[in-house]
Amino acid sequence: MPQGQPEAVPADGLTTRQRRNRPLLMVHTGPMKGKSTAAFGLAMRGWHQGWSIAVFQFVKSARWRVGEESGLLALNGVHEQTGAGGPVEWHKMGSGWSWSRKPGTEADHAADALEGWREIQRRLAEARHQLYVLDEFTYPMKWGWVDVDEVVDTLRNRPGGQHVVVTGRDADPRLVEAADLVVEMTKVKHPMDTGQKGQRGIEW
Amino acid sequence: MPQGQPEAVPADGLTTRQRRNRPLLMVHTGPMKGKSTAAFGLAMRGWHQGWSIAVFQFVKSARWRVGEESGLLALNGVHEQTGAGGPVEWHKMGSGWSWSRKPGTEADHAADALEGWREIQRRLAEARHQLYVLDEFTYPMKWGWVDVDEVVDTLRNRPGGQHVVVTGRDADPRLVEAADLVVEMTKVKHPMDTGQKGQRGIEW
Repeated sequence: MPQGQPEAVPADGLTTRQRRNRPLLMVHTGPMKGKSTAAFGLAMRGWHQGWSIAVFQFVKSARWRVGEESGLLALNGVHEQTGAGGPVEWHKMGSGWSWSRKPGTEADHAADALEGWREIQRRLAEARHQLYVLDEFTYPMKWGWVDVDEVVDTLRNRPGGQHVVVTGRDADPRLVEAADLVVEMTKVKHPMDTGQKGQRGIEW
Repeated sequence: MPQGQPEAVPADGLTTRQRRNRPLLMVHTGPMKGKSTAAFGLAMRGWHQGWSIAVFQFVKSARWRVGEESGLLALNGVHEQTGAGGPVEWHKMGSGWSWSRKPGTEADHAADALEGWREIQRRLAEARHQLYVLDEFTYPMKWGWVDVDEVVDTLRNRPGGQHVVVTGRDADPRLVEAADLVVEMTKVKHPMDTGQKGQRGIEW
């Protein structure tokens, strides 16, 4: 998308510069491919800006997103070796969160998800990163593993210039209400409709 | 998106393995953010698979997508130095195509676009890459700078296992018809609606 002109200039007392640098809460939702992929593309763009980026993946299979994980961690390596770009961290629930001493409890995904969210809350309070990718985080919200009102309150009141993108289907209306930008990926045509199976490099 | 089960098993005489490795023509269209970003996220995933990737950017401003260009070229550097991932090439119309001896003719975008498409045709005929990102390529099609029927014919009949993703608004119905997968990015909410300006790291 090219740099657009706003449709209206708001009477919010902010300067253009302040509005330009307003931290965004973004939601990528809808039934179709591209929600997470666009979020990781955004992370690549943030990397180029030198941002500190943290990905929190609320998924159970270690197989998913391995390409994006590998790519973003390779960019983190470039940052460490050359100073180009910014640092990237990748945390996933599937195999037990990296900061946790206990392995992932296959028996209690709800507790694992809540532990991930508590860590995100701590980091948001410290303004630790400039971009947080909360991948598939709509599901712990939908399933009641984390409290939606608490999530929305934490995100609305986060300090500093922290951007957050949440991905997943069925975003809660309260999250949509709180978000600055919401994109819905909708299906026009998908190869699985005609029997195509998911394939390496395309689906994961 | 998790690995899904197809909704139907087609009577196309192909094995599951053949269907799994079928080269895809993908289109990311619609009015909202995420079309290109998801395509570059897909390129990052393909990089991890060791694919040869070529991006062709049909845009005029050198500023756009600089983050993704930088990120993907850094991944190409990782590939060259360590052998990890695959090679990535990034070609853009804005400053004159890289293979062209003449600089970009600001006066004749139509000729520049057609020159880019001719190069893509040559590479497709040679099966040079495994993933082509034709960024904002819907516009040269829309504006008549390239012939839509010819594009569709070339893409339908491309040899080998070459994946292609085309991004941009207003995808031609003939391209949609030929595509295996079409995602539309639709707007639920955008900060420009309330006067937010595009910002570094988010829009470009």
